[in-house]
Amino acid sequence: MNAHVMDPVRPTVAATGRRAPSAELLAALRGRFAARLSTADSVLLQHGSDESSYRPQPPDAVVFVHDTAEAAFVVKACAAERVPVIAFGVGSSIEGHLLAVEGGVCIDFSQMNAVLAIRTGDLTATVQAGTTRNQLNAALAGTGFFFSVDPGADASIGGMVATAASGTNTVRYGTMRDNVVSLAVVTAQGEVIRTASHARKSSAGYNLTQLFCGSEGTLGLITEATVRIHPHPEVVAAAVVHFPTVRAAVDCVIESIQLGVPLARAEMLDALTIQAVNAHSRTALTEKPTLFLEFAGSQAQIDEQAAVVREIASGHGGGAFQWASRQEERSRLWTPRHHAYFASLQLKSGSRSMTTDACVPLSALASCVEETLDDIAAHGLLAPVFGHVGDGNFHCLVLVDPDAPDEVAAAEAFSHRLVQRSLRHGGTSTGEHGVGLHKMQYLVEEHGAVAVALMRSVKRAFDPQNIFNPGKVVSFG
Amino acid sequence: MNAHVMDPVRPTVAATGRRAPSAELLAALRGRFAARLSTADSVLLQHGSDESSYRPQPPDAVVFVHDTAEAAFVVKACAAERVPVIAFGVGSSIEGHLLAVEGGVCIDFSQMNAVLAIRTGDLTATVQAGTTRNQLNAALAGTGFFFSVDPGADASIGGMVATAASGTNTVRYGTMRDNVVSLAVVTAQGEVIRTASHARKSSAGYNLTQLFCGSEGTLGLITEATVRIHPHPEVVAAAVVHFPTVRAAVDCVIESIQLGVPLARAEMLDALTIQAVNAHSRTALTEKPTLFLEFAGSQAQIDEQAAVVREIASGHGGGAFQWASRQEERSRLWTPRHHAYFASLQLKSGSRSMTTDACVPLSALASCVEETLDDIAAHGLLAPVFGHVGDGNFHCLVLVDPDAPDEVAAAEAFSHRLVQRSLRHGGTSTGEHGVGLHKMQYLVEEHGAVAVALMRSVKRAFDPQNIFNPGKVVSFG
Repeated sequence: MNAHVMDPVRPTVAATGRRAPSAELLAALRGRFAARLSTADSVLLQHGSDESSYRPQPPDAVVFVHDTAEAAFVVKACAAERVPVIAFGVGSSIEGHLLAVEGGVCIDFSQMNAVLAIRTGDLTATVQAGTTRNQLNAALAGTGFFFSVDPGADASIGGMVATAASGTNTVRYGTMRDNVVSLAVVTAQGEVIRTASHARKSSAGYNLTQLFCGSEGTLGLITEATVRIHPHPEVVAAAVVHFPTVRAAVDCVIESIQLGVPLARAEMLDALTIQAVNAHSRTALTEKPTLFLEFAGSQAQIDEQAAVVREIASGHGGGAFQWASRQEERSRLWTPRHHAYFASLQLKSGSRSMTTDACVPLSALASCVEETLDDIAAHGLLAPVFGHVGDGNFHCLVLVDPDAPDEVAAAEAFSHRLVQRSLRHGGTSTGEHGVGLHKMQYLVEEHGAVAVALMRSVKRAFDPQNIFNPGKVVSFG
Repeated sequence: MNAHVMDPVRPTVAATGRRAPSAELLAALRGRFAARLSTADSVLLQHGSDESSYRPQPPDAVVFVHDTAEAAFVVKACAAERVPVIAFGVGSSIEGHLLAVEGGVCIDFSQMNAVLAIRTGDLTATVQAGTTRNQLNAALAGTGFFFSVDPGADASIGGMVATAASGTNTVRYGTMRDNVVSLAVVTAQGEVIRTASHARKSSAGYNLTQLFCGSEGTLGLITEATVRIHPHPEVVAAAVVHFPTVRAAVDCVIESIQLGVPLARAEMLDALTIQAVNAHSRTALTEKPTLFLEFAGSQAQIDEQAAVVREIASGHGGGAFQWASRQEERSRLWTPRHHAYFASLQLKSGSRSMTTDACVPLSALASCVEETLDDIAAHGLLAPVFGHVGDGNFHCLVLVDPDAPDEVAAAEAFSHRLVQRSLRHGGTSTGEHGVGLHKMQYLVEEHGAVAVALMRSVKRAFDPQNIFNPGKVVSFG
């Protein structure tokens, strides 16, 4: 069992041999980057921390790059000394992706956030990797188009590519995998490649784009991304409806999808999450499993879709639909969903959350969530549950006192059981958060030893010195 | 310049060292497969031929497998002697994928075509690799679901995964890449892996599914595939409308997509193709660039979509829409599109077609097609043009007398210029037909030498003995 499993909330990952940059390397970086190279403790600490429950593991230096050539310069310099290189977007990882477990140089992309091109004629945009999704959407304002992937945090698009992120409107617009067209990547030798043309489809050779997407900074450094953009729907309408059981809520969404209703969002909050929101926002929502839905299209299309979903919901004992169409009303109606995370944390003062990420085939979702709720009850855990029902993906926020070792151990044991349950239902250990440090232990169980050996052979082929984000995704040795 | 470029229509690929199976290997295969191993000349010839213009290159033996374990047995036996293994679906490749340029054993999947599972609750189906798309759709009859990818030929699903195929309804339902969930693959060591769970999304490690998809049998042997299935739309309506110019027809489709109209199909036939169809089918279509459209959804949705497209078409000088809703009427209306290939061949008796596969960003499509039509005219070629306009993908059928070396050379020179033009417009050398033998020469130009070297490193990592379909996609040496 890994060290971080023993103490999952504030663990220290076992040191695996630190590879610090030499004074000469730091001098070379300072020569090129001047004040954009930092070794200040506070900066190192910030860049060795993410939203996970791991103890920080700071890098030895942080470089704030402005373009691909600068990133390539850093990689070349580090490769010469076999010093680790870790990409940093906004630090919103929750699986320990960013921790400098072997030290090294962190490349911060936050100042490399130009929107390089918006091509409404091609339905694509090209951004530097540090551009956040909100920054891209701000740049798209007035064009009639938007970037769809919404993982909650205002993550960098480079980071979202690296973890194959998704979020609330995946059910309609797809994951990051479905929305990435082409990447600029710095290789372990410090060379720059483009993974694909800007054609909407291609059969020209092995799919490097999809190989880097989800590689979590371990195969190359993603410096630019061309992504799909989508036309704004004419009308968007939001609806909220509660159900007697989680199964009823889940089945309502799945039957709608089976009938071809193109739901724009379909989020479920369990009764405890609604209770947390009521306490947090002084609302008076019925404390039952609740769907937050969004429909998009013309008014006639929405009316049709809504009629179908209403009828299905009614068959599952769904309550009355609350509706909103205007932007402000929709935001208000969806507030409970947006506040779910912070409201949940306040269920237990001083608590931290350990967030799970099971994703199973649609037909197994209701059972998997039910079994998980039973597990939470049986073990006396405090864990609101909510999920992207249309994708089969749900999250439990297990609330623990980080200084209570028994709570921490119970949370980790729960997470372990949940991963096993997800795999047993034909699902995955992580639907959208990525492997990082936390899910490495499950890759063999999920994919088999031979498949993981193939993954490792890709890592060795692309990064023979193991300089890119070492200790993440697959072990090198 | 490669040998096949010198004589592109009926070329012989230069021998690169034949690796024939030993008598012992053949005996071992015969011991396991009995009459399902064939070395009959006619069988070898059939399995060394595809729909491309290359001269056949027969393998040394053909094995008709029934399941994954049998395929693994063949791979293990061949690996022990470093004998090539070539997967064969239905032989519909048009880029020379199947040619046994170094000899070896061909694995024919046509008898391995069971539909293993249909999961309407998950919107997936699992098939053995030899299952054709029509076989899967026949198995889906009555379920309310269908498999969407339609490349024209009744290809095997294994072959469609291997080439990342697409086709006429990609604009709505995506390519094979978008529709593959998980694969069973035999590795070069004869071991069997599953590339992913059946969850709709996952961030658990490197994306092996997408790496094998489009690998053309060079990284592993795809033996089973889990694919997405889609609910049948309530209503389907077909429309045909002609335009004064190719640009007008293309712009009509692109503007519709920009407005979010979810076209189910959008095919363009140029004036010469319509002329060919009129001659072939004794129809009297206006011999102008023509769109064949399909709309899907509820009647109200279709009416809305149609109204939008009509208005756009009118702004581009489009003629009157002809409509059809009932299945038989739709088929009749679309007959010209379905007959485009064979009708085109009859424009020149005794001719063969060299088919191109350019795919460019949407905004470049009209210019790229116009320049291509100018090129065809300037060089006096006979080449009907039609395409999947919503994907930026179009095909030219260059009709040549295979025994006239000057015509053959002119066709190949045209193909070369077209690839250059596609790349210049930000596109790809192959949108959906794959690399095979024919497009290998363009990979470096399209992706750059460093990216192709990464692809080659994947090939070496997965298949260190170069037994899987050697001589295709990337060179090994």
